[in-house]
Amino acid sequence: MIHTDILIIGAGPTGLFTVFEAGLLKLKTHLIDALPQPGGQCAEIYPKKPIYDIPGFPEILAGDLIKNLLKQIESFEPGFTLGERAETLERLEDDTFIVTTNKGTKHHAPVVVIAGGLGSFEPRKPPIANLQKYEDNGVAYIIRDPEVYRNKKVVIAGGGDSALDWSIFLADVASEVTLVHRRNEFRGALDSVEKVQELKNQGKINLITPAEITDLHGENELSGVTVQKKGEEPAFLEVDHFIPLFGLSPKLGPLGDWGLEIEKNAIKVDNSYDYQTNIPGVYAIGDVNTYKGKLKLILSGFHEAAVMCQSAYQRINPGKKYVMKYTTVSGVEGFDGSKKEAKRETVQTIY
Amino acid sequence: MIHTDILIIGAGPTGLFTVFEAGLLKLKTHLIDALPQPGGQCAEIYPKKPIYDIPGFPEILAGDLIKNLLKQIESFEPGFTLGERAETLERLEDDTFIVTTNKGTKHHAPVVVIAGGLGSFEPRKPPIANLQKYEDNGVAYIIRDPEVYRNKKVVIAGGGDSALDWSIFLADVASEVTLVHRRNEFRGALDSVEKVQELKNQGKINLITPAEITDLHGENELSGVTVQKKGEEPAFLEVDHFIPLFGLSPKLGPLGDWGLEIEKNAIKVDNSYDYQTNIPGVYAIGDVNTYKGKLKLILSGFHEAAVMCQSAYQRINPGKKYVMKYTTVSGVEGFDGSKKEAKRETVQTIY
Repeated sequence: MIHTDILIIGAGPTGLFTVFEAGLLKLKTHLIDALPQPGGQCAEIYPKKPIYDIPGFPEILAGDLIKNLLKQIESFEPGFTLGERAETLERLEDDTFIVTTNKGTKHHAPVVVIAGGLGSFEPRKPPIANLQKYEDNGVAYIIRDPEVYRNKKVVIAGGGDSALDWSIFLADVASEVTLVHRRNEFRGALDSVEKVQELKNQGKINLITPAEITDLHGENELSGVTVQKKGEEPAFLEVDHFIPLFGLSPKLGPLGDWGLEIEKNAIKVDNSYDYQTNIPGVYAIGDVNTYKGKLKLILSGFHEAAVMCQSAYQRINPGKKYVMKYTTVSGVEGFDGSKKEAKRETVQTIY
Repeated sequence: MIHTDILIIGAGPTGLFTVFEAGLLKLKTHLIDALPQPGGQCAEIYPKKPIYDIPGFPEILAGDLIKNLLKQIESFEPGFTLGERAETLERLEDDTFIVTTNKGTKHHAPVVVIAGGLGSFEPRKPPIANLQKYEDNGVAYIIRDPEVYRNKKVVIAGGGDSALDWSIFLADVASEVTLVHRRNEFRGALDSVEKVQELKNQGKINLITPAEITDLHGENELSGVTVQKKGEEPAFLEVDHFIPLFGLSPKLGPLGDWGLEIEKNAIKVDNSYDYQTNIPGVYAIGDVNTYKGKLKLILSGFHEAAVMCQSAYQRINPGKKYVMKYTTVSGVEGFDGSKKEAKRETVQTIY
């Protein structure tokens, strides 16, 4: 059982900044995210895209924003449960909560904050009848550790940046990379498209288009796929791994069954005070919440995180008065013993 | 008469970011500030101090935050009325407003947003009976243009960073610099204290401590001051300029008389929707406003600015539907014809 003060569901920018605001109040945090790394959409979907509306950054790549936030919260030593989806919320008699993931990891905290963005990102799956049988036995929708594919035969399906970029990367790792796409046209960064063309010309990527994978084969583990190229007979291809990269689609998912008030696929909160949901002690901030005039902007998540942490502090320390301190005046004390602060002034006589 | 869409009172970080959010909605902005430069407290009071709680910046100097914001809003070409204090608000029959400054400059807009921070910063003045007589005739509380003091005799009073730094700066400009402080000890950056000591040793700064200026002399313009050094007889000192630098103290000021609902020296707003005040069309954002759970944080001002601009858009374009666009997806189009946007994807066949 993992214990913390504020359990944060979702490690996107809003979830990460919550660690900072909680840390200023000396509250410990732990984050759960279905993706294998922190950063949410910014890290998974568009790390190389510029964002122009983060205050103080005329332009910042989404991936760099996440790097900066991770650095900003480092000294507060947040815990992470990554690659697992928060599945159930249980309220104990003492009004604290247990959140259990799809892999059975249990987390206990007096405050839960859902910073789940548009929901947990679930891979879009191809319509292959026996697909599920091979999940984790040769079929994967997200590449967590490329070393798994070293000297293996891999078929990647898809026509976007992920399919292109992983084909390029695995061309140097796997013994054989086949890229299958249902159209001849690929949509992605010009660099990536050109690089795949080059690797194809060199025989390092085996390209089959327009084509689809229509069947999977193998006793217990995947050992082959059926490739259906348009206008041709279905063909058998011997492979160890099949990686369909058809994008991720956000789903509110199991959160939808936690008894939270849901409106337009988002969680209703009290924006007139502290972004608390209808379950006392459970807050929702960032893109996952809704209220009158809600803007799904990263900068709004930041504000909501700061406000929500003050309310959480009161819940965790009932009756205790907290006087807000400014970081410029008081500095930032990390849980790791570090302290950042403005250069001290001197008081000195001039003779 | 200056016309604009959103008239922003206060050019601190919140006011500046309002220009950006308004610009995304194609709304023009104009800012009024009592200080001679944009940036509010960040630029005037603590430009060299680090802030640690701006999301995405593990550390940023207040002055650099302002520089970044100015760069971020540049393409939206905001107008500025600087060094003037917003004095009166007049509501016209068509529900638009005229705001007039203490120098008589008039501004006309359908929406007014007060981003006035803790109020306009008024200099703390020393208790000298005939002080007012010499204001703008030899006495100044803020140095706007150091060239005014070239080859003049200047006396500076104060014991903090401003007094130290301007003494250092003017030592090279004025013909004579006298620094008067009521204690022997100065409070400021170590560098500055040491530099003043050095200049004093070189005879470039005339230091009189512990002492106070007790009287001013001169027919119409200032021509001399009385210095009272502790334990000594009062002495006459011939000077052209007296600059008391005792800090700035924020005052809500004339805003207090605009018929706005005031609570604890701040303007009450509707945080459950759009940060509008009790006067429709007049909003208040940032440190100047108050509501249940209000946090006086720069990041909260940023969020309030974004939300407020959406409401202002509706007021200015009644009934027009605005579909929010993400800067990452749609880019940012400046009023100067510039366009920033993410690198376009390509759709290309791989042969």
